[in-house]
Amino acid sequence: MIPNLNLVPFVSVDNMMKLVLRVGVENFIAGLAEYVEADFRRWACFDKTPRVASHSAEGVIELMPTSDGRTYGFKYVNGHPKNAREGRQTVTAFGVLSDVGTGYPVLMSEMTILTALRTAATSAVAARHLAPRDAGCMAIIGNGAQAEFQALAFKALLGIRRFRLHDIDPAATAKCVRNLAGQGVETVPCRSAEEAVAGAQIVTTATADKQRATILTDNMVGAGLHINAVGGDCPGKTELHRDILLRSDIFVEYAPQTRIEGEIQQLPADHQVTELWQVMTGAAAGRRRDAQQITLFDSVGFATEDFSALRYLRDVLAGTGLYQDLDMLADPDEPRDLFGMILRSARPAELGAAM
Amino acid sequence: MIPNLNLVPFVSVDNMMKLVLRVGVENFIAGLAEYVEADFRRWACFDKTPRVASHSAEGVIELMPTSDGRTYGFKYVNGHPKNAREGRQTVTAFGVLSDVGTGYPVLMSEMTILTALRTAATSAVAARHLAPRDAGCMAIIGNGAQAEFQALAFKALLGIRRFRLHDIDPAATAKCVRNLAGQGVETVPCRSAEEAVAGAQIVTTATADKQRATILTDNMVGAGLHINAVGGDCPGKTELHRDILLRSDIFVEYAPQTRIEGEIQQLPADHQVTELWQVMTGAAAGRRRDAQQITLFDSVGFATEDFSALRYLRDVLAGTGLYQDLDMLADPDEPRDLFGMILRSARPAELGAAM
Repeated sequence: MIPNLNLVPFVSVDNMMKLVLRVGVENFIAGLAEYVEADFRRWACFDKTPRVASHSAEGVIELMPTSDGRTYGFKYVNGHPKNAREGRQTVTAFGVLSDVGTGYPVLMSEMTILTALRTAATSAVAARHLAPRDAGCMAIIGNGAQAEFQALAFKALLGIRRFRLHDIDPAATAKCVRNLAGQGVETVPCRSAEEAVAGAQIVTTATADKQRATILTDNMVGAGLHINAVGGDCPGKTELHRDILLRSDIFVEYAPQTRIEGEIQQLPADHQVTELWQVMTGAAAGRRRDAQQITLFDSVGFATEDFSALRYLRDVLAGTGLYQDLDMLADPDEPRDLFGMILRSARPAELGAAM
Repeated sequence: MIPNLNLVPFVSVDNMMKLVLRVGVENFIAGLAEYVEADFRRWACFDKTPRVASHSAEGVIELMPTSDGRTYGFKYVNGHPKNAREGRQTVTAFGVLSDVGTGYPVLMSEMTILTALRTAATSAVAARHLAPRDAGCMAIIGNGAQAEFQALAFKALLGIRRFRLHDIDPAATAKCVRNLAGQGVETVPCRSAEEAVAGAQIVTTATADKQRATILTDNMVGAGLHINAVGGDCPGKTELHRDILLRSDIFVEYAPQTRIEGEIQQLPADHQVTELWQVMTGAAAGRRRDAQQITLFDSVGFATEDFSALRYLRDVLAGTGLYQDLDMLADPDEPRDLFGMILRSARPAELGAAM
């Protein structure tokens, strides 16, 4: 895919949209989900560094690196809740995949869209192991940027067709209903979270408030439910009442990170949780034959998922031409002659006939 | 400089070479040096994270983030000694500058060339405070990719005109002599490090071996010398005999990092060293009125220097047009409508007349 050592394929926002549409949103999420699950299943291979965060009054900028020993990846991601009020995205991201053997980047991509897809794919991958088998209806509380991706991920991976939507802003719900029209799903706008939850076997919370919120209270959570908590993902930002956590079997991506960022920051540090890879590999139970079991996926997003997304992107990108080659790596004929490369670059253009 | 929120200016290798030539190598280094020193002087403003390293058998990939509270920057850099044997650079790098207030990247650049320039600028900035006042001749031991940049930095900032060059590979020295011809300096190829050091008031070591090496032995270091040790920059990689360290006043960028990566990894963790910013702000002495004093700048490269380099680049880039706009950030009309943006992107191209 890379004709020259110095060129790095770059997937712009525009090319990402073209690629997602060409592959199909559901196919893309389903393909990505297989990479996410495959990488969770080889959990021990990964270099798991906590994310490197730079906090400010307005938000956070984070670097999320990981490596499986052959390939290295990192994501740059910001979180600035005030951005939405200024016409910017709350979260934007880009990422890089590199060859561990040479240290050379092999792919760079926008990851705002890709993160939305991988978050939804991860939710659905988790639900495949945790949701009740007969689930046909999911409530989505919080109908912002993540909502439609969640709906199509659960359609693609679990066959869910009915979605009960609620947002404190009815315009967000209307947007979601509009976007999902023609996607082969049934949407039901609901005036309250209580109403949305009624009759759903899965509840997804994907709200964006930074403050400690209580999107779900204990009385709203019936026996047998699977809760997919996507919105709480930084210190001080939670969505569920603590009592729900105490009644649930809790599943996380990487416990050390989730204890800081997830719903379980409300619980003592030794509260029992299960990492998703343990369920996938059979090392721990997920959904049991117990109609009363409440399962909770306390999702915060982990570096391996971005790594999986970049790996999938690289593979699905091949042959599409939907990338630009970035001249990002200096590549002198003689590696020790960086200075000479600069000097020689002048000759055709600036010295002209003097050559 | 950025007409649209979603576009990030990107400086390619080609544009970096054009920019450096347009500004002039010495001017570029001198300009960059002022930013490096200005940022060292406001040391307390910076968020100083140790670099985040991912080590493998063949090398290392590192992320080096920092922030001054208004601007955030990070550099991606690899170090793979074996690369040179395969026609690749041992070290390649790129970096990003972002606005802390929004988390949005505002500049992305190749940094292989920029790092070479900032390393040389930092060496010369340090020497301005540490080298003997009357220095006119510098030995450069190790004539690889960094050598010419060091020479021109010391010419630009300290007026050094004579350079005594040595490398275990005479071809590297010949390349260096060739590249420096016409740059207003005198170069003297030397057959040994001993010969190179003779008559020099400053000695720069810039070799690339990963192993613990002894480029300078104790008997080669005379009274009054300033040593600029650039090559030793990772665990296990040093260039100077331990006895030299014990006779020198040692100056470092950021002690916690240098204790791990620098020459001083050979010394006990409590050995007294001075951070460069302390000298610049007058909090500690640099070169004293003492003809016997041996000063050593144990340089490993710190994140603030890359930050300074990116800041300088952004300012010097303005108006040159020497960048491409990368469509890197998703920018929907409605921030919550990421999915709708993807759907709508299809219309002009794929639905055509159906609009």
